[in-house]
Amino acid sequence: MTGSPTASGVQVGVAQISVDRTDVAANVERVIETLRAGAAGGHQLVVFPECVLTGYLFDSRAETRAAAIGAADPRIGRIVRACAETSVHAVVGLLEEADGRVYNSALVLGPSGIIGRYRKQHLPYLGADRFVDPGADAAPRVADTPFGRVGVMICFDLRFPESARELALQGADLIAMPTNWPMGSDMLADHMTRVRALENLVYLAVADRADAEAGTRFMGRSQIIAPSGEVLADAGQDEGLFGASIDVRAARTKRLIKKPGEFELPVFAGRRPEMYGELTRPMASGQ
Amino acid sequence: MTGSPTASGVQVGVAQISVDRTDVAANVERVIETLRAGAAGGHQLVVFPECVLTGYLFDSRAETRAAAIGAADPRIGRIVRACAETSVHAVVGLLEEADGRVYNSALVLGPSGIIGRYRKQHLPYLGADRFVDPGADAAPRVADTPFGRVGVMICFDLRFPESARELALQGADLIAMPTNWPMGSDMLADHMTRVRALENLVYLAVADRADAEAGTRFMGRSQIIAPSGEVLADAGQDEGLFGASIDVRAARTKRLIKKPGEFELPVFAGRRPEMYGELTRPMASGQ
Repeated sequence: MTGSPTASGVQVGVAQISVDRTDVAANVERVIETLRAGAAGGHQLVVFPECVLTGYLFDSRAETRAAAIGAADPRIGRIVRACAETSVHAVVGLLEEADGRVYNSALVLGPSGIIGRYRKQHLPYLGADRFVDPGADAAPRVADTPFGRVGVMICFDLRFPESARELALQGADLIAMPTNWPMGSDMLADHMTRVRALENLVYLAVADRADAEAGTRFMGRSQIIAPSGEVLADAGQDEGLFGASIDVRAARTKRLIKKPGEFELPVFAGRRPEMYGELTRPMASGQ
Repeated sequence: MTGSPTASGVQVGVAQISVDRTDVAANVERVIETLRAGAAGGHQLVVFPECVLTGYLFDSRAETRAAAIGAADPRIGRIVRACAETSVHAVVGLLEEADGRVYNSALVLGPSGIIGRYRKQHLPYLGADRFVDPGADAAPRVADTPFGRVGVMICFDLRFPESARELALQGADLIAMPTNWPMGSDMLADHMTRVRALENLVYLAVADRADAEAGTRFMGRSQIIAPSGEVLADAGQDEGLFGASIDVRAARTKRLIKKPGEFELPVFAGRRPEMYGELTRPMASGQ
C-alpha cells in the first residue's frame, strides 16, 4: 500500500538499525538501503535513530567536534536524492556542525531537500550531549509533508512534557523521535511514549538502536504509538524496519472521544494557558 | 509506624470509599471513621476521592448547586476536629459553594483548619463539571505540612501535563489527586499516573471510588506512585484504606539518579523555560 496524499492510511516506519561510529559513509549507505526497503514496503516516512549518521557516545569535546558534519554535507545530499528516487521522507539524526558550534540535531529530508531541522534542546549528562550546544531555534519545528505535519524531538526531550506539548500546539500530526535509549529505559518505553501520544493526541514514532557503541548497549524498543496510546509497533530488540499504518485525521480533532455520541473530552480546548505562567518562569539558579 | 516530622518515612493513605449522593452527613461520618482508622495505622495524610462529601454525577445546574456546600460548613469543621484529634491531615473533595459560584474543589485539612484549597481548572463534559465554574486561583496550590509540601489536582487535570508540572515547580513533594474515574480509564491508571510522578519526580497519591453513582460505576485503582514511577500501592477494585511509606527526600533532588556516581539526569535544571512560550499562548477560538 503506497497511499496517496489524500488517503487516510499513511505507512510510517521506524528503522532500528546499527551505527558505525564515525563512519559516516557506511551509515549513509545503511540509511539509503533502508529507505529503499521502506519504499518497497509502501512507507511514506522512515524515522532513523539519534545520531544515526555520526555515532553518539563520544567522551570529549574534541571527539564530538571531529564526528560532526554540516547539513550541507554532500553525503546528506545523497540521502535527499534517495528520498527523491523513492518518494519517501526521512528523519535522520546527526551531530551537526554549524557556524563553529556542534548540535545534536535531526533533519527532516524529503524529495526536495531539507524541509525541517531540530536541534536537541534538553541535554542529559551523557555521551556527546555533554559537549554540544543546546538547540535555541525559536521557530516552529513542524515540517509540512504531503501526508501530514511532522514534528521532531530527540531522546531526553521525551522526559520533558513541554517538548511534545509545544509540537502538538504547533500542529504536529506525528512526532518523530530519534533516540539512543540506554538499557534499562523500560519506564520510558512501557509508559512515557504512550502518555506523550495520548496527552497530545498525536502519533509518536520512536527510532532507537539495538546495537552497542563504545561498550554501551542500546535498548531497542523502537515504537509507533497512536493518539489513543495504543502501541501499533514495538521492535523489541530486533534490528530492521518496523512499520504501521496511521490516519492523521485521528491526530486532528484534539478531542478525545470516549464514547461516540455520549461525551467528548476537550483535551486541547480545555487547556488553561492563562494559568500556566509558572512553566515559562526562568529557573532559579541551583535548581 | 507513626513517624515524626523529621523521620524519612511518612505513611500516606488513599481512601477508596463509597459516597452517598447528597447525604453530606453520612459522607462526613465515613471520612471521619476512615481518618481514625488511618491514625490507628500510623498514617499522617489520607487522600479522599473527588466530591467525596457531596457526590458528583449531577445532571443539571440546579442539582449541582443544591448539592454544593460552603467551606465554612460546620460539617467540614467536624472533619477538622477529627484531624486535630488524630493528628492526621486529609484531602477531601466537594462541590464548593462560594460567592454565588460553584466549584469542584478539594480542601487540605489539618489540625489547625483548612490549610489548602484547590478549585479544579480543567473540566470535562461530564457530571457536575458541566455546571461548575473553572478554578481561577492564581495562588500556589501547595500546602505546607509538618511532613512535606502537598499539592492538589483533581481527576481530569491528570491529562494536562501542565497541572502536575506547575505543582512540582511550586515545590510539591506529593501531589494528592482526588478522582472519579469512570470504568475504562485503564490508560490513566496503567500509564499516566506513573508518568506524572516520574517526569516531575514527585509522589502521586490518587484516591478514586469503586462504587456507583446514578448508574455509573467508578473504576477504583486508587494508587500511590513513587518519583521513580514505581507503584507503591494499587487498590484494584476493593474498598478501604490503602497506604504506603514515602520519603519526601526522594522528591527533592529534582535529579534522576540513574547510576549513583556515574551520571544524573537534570530533569529540572535541564528545563528550557525560555523555549516554552507556546504553552502559555491563548488558545485560538475553535480549537
